[in-house]
Amino acid sequence: MFEKVLIANRGEIALRIIRTCREMGIKTVAVYSTADRESLHVRFADEAVCIGPPSSAESYLSVPRIMAAVEITNADAVHPGYGFLAENADFAEVCAEYGIKFIGPTPAQIRKMGDKVTAKETMIKAGVPVIPGSDGLVKDLKSGQKIAKEIGYPVIIKATAGGGGKGMRIVWEAKDFENNWDRARQEAKAAFGNDGIYIEKFIEEPRHIEFQIAGDQKGKVVHLSERDCSIQRRHQKLVEECPSPFMTDDLREKMGEAAVRAGEAIKYEGVGTVEFLVDKYRNFYFMEMNTRIQVEHPVTEEVIDHDLIKEQIKIAAGERITGGNYIPNGHAMECRINAEDPLNGFRPSPGRITSFHSSKGHGVRVDTHVYAGYTIPPNYDSMIAKLICRARTREECIKKMERALDEFIIEGVKTTVPFHQQLMKDERFKAGDFHTGFLNDFEIKEPKKK
Amino acid sequence: MFEKVLIANRGEIALRIIRTCREMGIKTVAVYSTADRESLHVRFADEAVCIGPPSSAESYLSVPRIMAAVEITNADAVHPGYGFLAENADFAEVCAEYGIKFIGPTPAQIRKMGDKVTAKETMIKAGVPVIPGSDGLVKDLKSGQKIAKEIGYPVIIKATAGGGGKGMRIVWEAKDFENNWDRARQEAKAAFGNDGIYIEKFIEEPRHIEFQIAGDQKGKVVHLSERDCSIQRRHQKLVEECPSPFMTDDLREKMGEAAVRAGEAIKYEGVGTVEFLVDKYRNFYFMEMNTRIQVEHPVTEEVIDHDLIKEQIKIAAGERITGGNYIPNGHAMECRINAEDPLNGFRPSPGRITSFHSSKGHGVRVDTHVYAGYTIPPNYDSMIAKLICRARTREECIKKMERALDEFIIEGVKTTVPFHQQLMKDERFKAGDFHTGFLNDFEIKEPKKK
Repeated sequence: MFEKVLIANRGEIALRIIRTCREMGIKTVAVYSTADRESLHVRFADEAVCIGPPSSAESYLSVPRIMAAVEITNADAVHPGYGFLAENADFAEVCAEYGIKFIGPTPAQIRKMGDKVTAKETMIKAGVPVIPGSDGLVKDLKSGQKIAKEIGYPVIIKATAGGGGKGMRIVWEAKDFENNWDRARQEAKAAFGNDGIYIEKFIEEPRHIEFQIAGDQKGKVVHLSERDCSIQRRHQKLVEECPSPFMTDDLREKMGEAAVRAGEAIKYEGVGTVEFLVDKYRNFYFMEMNTRIQVEHPVTEEVIDHDLIKEQIKIAAGERITGGNYIPNGHAMECRINAEDPLNGFRPSPGRITSFHSSKGHGVRVDTHVYAGYTIPPNYDSMIAKLICRARTREECIKKMERALDEFIIEGVKTTVPFHQQLMKDERFKAGDFHTGFLNDFEIKEPKKK
Repeated sequence: MFEKVLIANRGEIALRIIRTCREMGIKTVAVYSTADRESLHVRFADEAVCIGPPSSAESYLSVPRIMAAVEITNADAVHPGYGFLAENADFAEVCAEYGIKFIGPTPAQIRKMGDKVTAKETMIKAGVPVIPGSDGLVKDLKSGQKIAKEIGYPVIIKATAGGGGKGMRIVWEAKDFENNWDRARQEAKAAFGNDGIYIEKFIEEPRHIEFQIAGDQKGKVVHLSERDCSIQRRHQKLVEECPSPFMTDDLREKMGEAAVRAGEAIKYEGVGTVEFLVDKYRNFYFMEMNTRIQVEHPVTEEVIDHDLIKEQIKIAAGERITGGNYIPNGHAMECRINAEDPLNGFRPSPGRITSFHSSKGHGVRVDTHVYAGYTIPPNYDSMIAKLICRARTREECIKKMERALDEFIIEGVKTTVPFHQQLMKDERFKAGDFHTGFLNDFEIKEPKKK
């Protein structure tokens, strides 16, 4: 087993990883930018190294600075968390060159799934259903128009290097194709320095249902059930749950099998997530695979009662996976508490937290790096806590979440708590009747004062 | 179902009950003494009524004041929590007279188990093994000496009205009988106004293993597994866990059956706890039954995944129990975090909490009513938090507890955290090799500074 793990990340996920390492008897090294001196991940690690200024490019994204911290502290493994360098194959390669274990898949596996076109080709070969679309990158406007006509409108134009909604445009009619094509390419060029574009059938009213998988170094892959992440705003997940209210035993079996096939096709090592879109007839299509731990992994932990970070570390250390696929026990849900003002278009609200009380009690878990007196820096994403509830049924879980949201006290900054409170009372949400467009016509109201 | 529950208690258990009521859609009323204005249970209830000065006799133990609060707020049920009026049959009777549901057993059931001599007689009739001893109260010194000789030394002299170690004396040899007899009677008279005394065989190196039971209004009783509470200091529990490291499947079946028989014998309604002493040969003896929720109930909640307060309320509302006995899934442990100085004989350390960060993460639960800035009043018991960990095995659970204790930050007062940290590293504790006298020769050391 590793002796010392450096966590190349910040905030709640860094703290989350430190907790598991401690339970496993592994020493930890935190790295931090000058903006993160006061974060709990710095306080709770065995050692902490400042790696640069607030700018991510000069700190959390800087491979030389992180490798210097590895060398100084003599760490024998690196956990990349999510975001930043978690899906950077070059970083994983540098780690390997230095004889440091990168806790995650191999550089080749990251590359195969990181490029969406290659990923899709791999899935087609493995017999995993994919969304009808262009065969790889589209070379020009003319070919794009031809392909769109063949698969039928609506279609979606996507940047191959894209993510988080950038470089992505829906086209409803042929006459709008050219304009959207140009804008998608410009956006992609600006955001990712790569204007490679592909086209897909646009699935109306789709659900985002993803499968957690785990694979060991001997090629064994299992799935750990699904997570429904359809409650999104501009492709940013806000609520995740397991089981999906749309799931059936039959569908779970089919989708689970496909997810395992996806992992087996690349002999996937580590924990990963296979994301699908599911249409209203319960047809499902591979969307992408994330070759890292996800923000929403606690949802799975609560229903299968396993620590996924521990599994990740054990796999990286060469341990074999025993046993088969997992079926959820009970219901779990996560609300992402962001420092954003839901009444003003979710505008970021950084600043000093003057009062902080995290919800507690049976079946309630809060993963967070903040506390009363902590100042949220404006430099990073706005998520300040994940509130996770677990209960025997979805109905009980929603009631527990309502209670836990009512109990959450965060003063000094605006948060998404009022949005979640309203969502938990929404009849359509309670009935499980939603898709990824659900929030488009969801009007957020000023909460009543107590 | 009830519309509004008044919680006739304070601190963490009051808050615990409020949480469940909220999840069940039941309104809550908190009562508080002037010393408890700043407690979270007051903040989170729908309504709060001040019922008197810090003195318990004039607030939490005052039946007229609590009934006045019930009347003012129009509550239709009262939850007594633990301690205070929880096992006061007269209070339960007053509630019944006013048409208010007392969430707990009937006055007759409370009386039957509250008096230790009556309880023992009831158990003998029900075929539950009891500790050999006097047949009821001992009328005088002479008879006492005769009985002690019959059952054989060591014996223990106990006050029938006693509890928490008061009015309880162990006698190792005949020559010490008279002196201890006198002192036990004096103590009992002073503490409880009742010097009724009985005698029992003293079990050497016993384990305290209790069974959680639940009975509905139709006479159905089930058990929800055991809790091992052998880690005690002067009869005060400090650590509780389930499963007991001493338990076997066979013993659980036998003890569980006996616990269910105990409940059935009095047609017990509600949740309750049957406490046993278990000797090293795994003989077990009924000690007493607590006719209320226990401090350590979360241990059971975490291994059977049920909310015991919810079960209590449902039973009080007339719901039937479906299903059978429960077997623990995984391992759970609770450490009682008291504002006491373990390096100075566990001397109470009330005062202002200047900094407070409660442990979090997968499998960690903290039940508490305190926060940074809260002042612990000197008037009540010193427990300020319960730290509960759940994992798949006892070994993992202890590692998780160690991590969670290291992460717990409480500044401004002394706490039992350093004691628990040392205990979790103790080889005998880790091996499960302990009994109720374990702490007698446990030397608490000054923790190393980081």
